[in-house]
Amino acid sequence: MTTPWTPAEFEQQLRSLGRYYHTHHPFQTMMYAGKLNAAQLRGWVANRFYYQVTIPRKDAALLFNCPDREVRRVWIQRILDHDGGPATDHISNGGIEAWLRLGEACGVPREELLDQRHVLPGVRFAVDAYINFVHQADWREGVCSSLTELFAPTAHRQRLQSWPDHYPWIDNAGLQYFRNRLTEAHRDVDHGLALTLQHFTTVEQQQRALQILKFKLDVLWTMLDAMYLAYIQDMPPYFNIEETNHE
Amino acid sequence: MTTPWTPAEFEQQLRSLGRYYHTHHPFQTMMYAGKLNAAQLRGWVANRFYYQVTIPRKDAALLFNCPDREVRRVWIQRILDHDGGPATDHISNGGIEAWLRLGEACGVPREELLDQRHVLPGVRFAVDAYINFVHQADWREGVCSSLTELFAPTAHRQRLQSWPDHYPWIDNAGLQYFRNRLTEAHRDVDHGLALTLQHFTTVEQQQRALQILKFKLDVLWTMLDAMYLAYIQDMPPYFNIEETNHE
Repeated sequence: MTTPWTPAEFEQQLRSLGRYYHTHHPFQTMMYAGKLNAAQLRGWVANRFYYQVTIPRKDAALLFNCPDREVRRVWIQRILDHDGGPATDHISNGGIEAWLRLGEACGVPREELLDQRHVLPGVRFAVDAYINFVHQADWREGVCSSLTELFAPTAHRQRLQSWPDHYPWIDNAGLQYFRNRLTEAHRDVDHGLALTLQHFTTVEQQQRALQILKFKLDVLWTMLDAMYLAYIQDMPPYFNIEETNHE
Repeated sequence: MTTPWTPAEFEQQLRSLGRYYHTHHPFQTMMYAGKLNAAQLRGWVANRFYYQVTIPRKDAALLFNCPDREVRRVWIQRILDHDGGPATDHISNGGIEAWLRLGEACGVPREELLDQRHVLPGVRFAVDAYINFVHQADWREGVCSSLTELFAPTAHRQRLQSWPDHYPWIDNAGLQYFRNRLTEAHRDVDHGLALTLQHFTTVEQQQRALQILKFKLDVLWTMLDAMYLAYIQDMPPYFNIEETNHE
């Protein structure tokens, strides 16, 4: 390839990576098909919470790296959306609070989410790889790594469609997080995509952008790998270690 | 607990965490029992190589953080052992070269190790968690995180004992890495253990040291989790994604 893609072609290339989105992971397909038991679903909610609480710090790292005030003025909305803003009437007090309520609706007490006792090392390492990447990368690469949001509305819609039928024991009010994200993710991705199309213009840059998006897809997929091994294959860390002689 | 452990008690507590060492992971027990096929063994060799090449950079991060010249003068030997030193007659040109020869003996060409094409994202995230920890931590915490070496000679001995019987197609000369590490790891751990016993003296510090060693055990275990899912369960990343329409 010797000439760069047009913005429309480049966008198409980025969107085509959606075939690797974690909605295709067996853990998620089992979820949408109603094949998870309560413990498995709770494991997902508790592990995914580590991603939720890391995202505002990831976005703060991006703000830290970004010298462009106009970009920061828009990007900061992501932190407000997740943490909740200074105003007490900010929607649902933010995505983290909404996820805590999702946890409660699923039967995971908020203390157990907040103290991260259920977070698997493999999930932690994958999420930390994401925040470390954004911390160390150029801010435009950080923006690009957020573009898995291109594919997120599908995932939220699948959850909203399948959970009430398959998991009727979960209070429907607990699903508010997914409803909120349908609008938020749409708005966020418009901004992130426009910045990416604007800044990655050479052949090398566009190839690099695809690599970055693939890295982020690896993060999401690997999180589910850890959950699959622990909760579907019943192989959580140290599952075979005899503890009785040492406790 | 209100009084700190004596050095001997503290050492015993550290050593007791050896029950979580990755030699107990199903992937390793299969290895020692001769249950891995060639592709699975090669997968391990290629993924573990990412750990090998990261270790000298991890030790360089520790040198960077350490203001104590006497410690640095001893610790630097680890980098020399892995990378090979300036003198051309340094033993086997170091552990990385020895691992490349191990790879060749197992049928993995050195280019395939060096370009890291086989490295699974979950392995990369786990190893990167280790180097990032050492980079960001106090140097004494970095030292403590190296103490899985307490348990390493057992692993190397198990490999030297089981491989020739179970995997006779591997040239015995290729196992030199394990033979070298039997002596090197013994010497390294004496230094790392002495520093840890000397610096972690309060109740809180000793508890923290156990957490750090457990974190490092998590890194090693999680690496094998990723290999187990990919090579034993045949679930490498994106194994179920149809590529034909996109290539």
